[in-house]
Amino acid sequence: MLSKSQIKLVNSLKHKKFRQKHQLFIVEGVKVIKEILKSNLEVEALFATVDLFSFNSENFYLISETDLAKISALSTPQIALALVKIPNNKINVHQQNSLTVALDGVRDPGNLGTIIRLCDWFDVSTLICSPDTVDCYNPKVVQATMGSLVRVDIVYEDLNQVLTQTNLPIYGAFMNAEPIYSTYLERNGILVMGNEANGISTEIENLITHKISIPKFGSAEVESLNVATATSIMLSEFKRNQFTEK
Amino acid sequence: MLSKSQIKLVNSLKHKKFRQKHQLFIVEGVKVIKEILKSNLEVEALFATVDLFSFNSENFYLISETDLAKISALSTPQIALALVKIPNNKINVHQQNSLTVALDGVRDPGNLGTIIRLCDWFDVSTLICSPDTVDCYNPKVVQATMGSLVRVDIVYEDLNQVLTQTNLPIYGAFMNAEPIYSTYLERNGILVMGNEANGISTEIENLITHKISIPKFGSAEVESLNVATATSIMLSEFKRNQFTEK
Repeated sequence: MLSKSQIKLVNSLKHKKFRQKHQLFIVEGVKVIKEILKSNLEVEALFATVDLFSFNSENFYLISETDLAKISALSTPQIALALVKIPNNKINVHQQNSLTVALDGVRDPGNLGTIIRLCDWFDVSTLICSPDTVDCYNPKVVQATMGSLVRVDIVYEDLNQVLTQTNLPIYGAFMNAEPIYSTYLERNGILVMGNEANGISTEIENLITHKISIPKFGSAEVESLNVATATSIMLSEFKRNQFTEK
Repeated sequence: MLSKSQIKLVNSLKHKKFRQKHQLFIVEGVKVIKEILKSNLEVEALFATVDLFSFNSENFYLISETDLAKISALSTPQIALALVKIPNNKINVHQQNSLTVALDGVRDPGNLGTIIRLCDWFDVSTLICSPDTVDCYNPKVVQATMGSLVRVDIVYEDLNQVLTQTNLPIYGAFMNAEPIYSTYLERNGILVMGNEANGISTEIENLITHKISIPKFGSAEVESLNVATATSIMLSEFKRNQFTEK
């Protein structure tokens, strides 16, 4: 059975302030938790209605479905919920030898989750988020990543500082710039994607060395692509050369 | 002021059964409604808290914010709500002279909305949905299309019937097939995208003439791309040749 203080702790982690205070985040679902147990991430506690895990610890709690519903952030709770320690990722942009993605103020949890999954698919090992980007340990983001959160190193850093320190080409997605289809895209660089409504901020725009666009083929009225779909097309373009050169 | 029967009618349209009975759907937001008023779609009634429209009709209703909240499907109602007649789109696949997209059982409203917006961007004028694809007049889909619903012809048809009647190449997205980067993609064809969890159904798979895949560059553990991001990459690949040939 869950104690009142456990219920209070888990529910507090739905808020960023308490995730930062306790340095913990919530992960739900058997499959993702199994992946986390195999990864470098540290599981602080595991609550489940069935013991499907080889988690030999006094911090494993077999609980009822009623108790799981009290702590789950999902409308349909999924057998297990883990409290995981927030990893202390560090990056050195200069030492990257592949493409890095940087997000400037992406606010929607679903978009961030989708972008993390795309980084995993396209072998982008590091994702740099501006401090005003939605927290990647928000339960909605964690759920949308479908486990990819484990495999992508995510850091929150002042983009201005990171980008002024690098000699790598810095690509930025804009509405009317050089079409990606005819731009030579370096393997080793940084791709900056902007906020859903306002795009890349002026401060960061000044640091972009290559402004690129996804050409529009359709009607003049369609204003923009969603940031997650635009990121998917950009990443596919960056990687396709690598594929066709093989 | 709104009558009880108006409130009942609008709220009933949140359900597919009543949208089909009344042949009406709900559109919210000033910008989208203005686009609809300029389009071929027919507005049956318009409710707004401010008159920002040149809609000269006895079916314009200036209402209070309280009344708007009673009929809106949004958590934050957006000034105006229109009842729009469901258009009677007809397609003839054989007469298409560009790419057509067909969806086999896409269930998530956000995914369908994003795909409609992508069709608009990439000049795909016709979208064929299997009967078990989520209804494109579902308020969540309408909201996610950001106005693109007006510019893409969407039909619900038995895919088996449509695909057996065509001589066009039929491309289908699968997990392990010919990489899109090295496949010659015809301008004139049909691209089939499958259900979020199960992909393209076996019945439809048998009709696919070209099975294609988006290569995975990252870790073995990442299982799939979201159907909307996969569609964005596919459409970009189909159209990029057209761009680079220009």
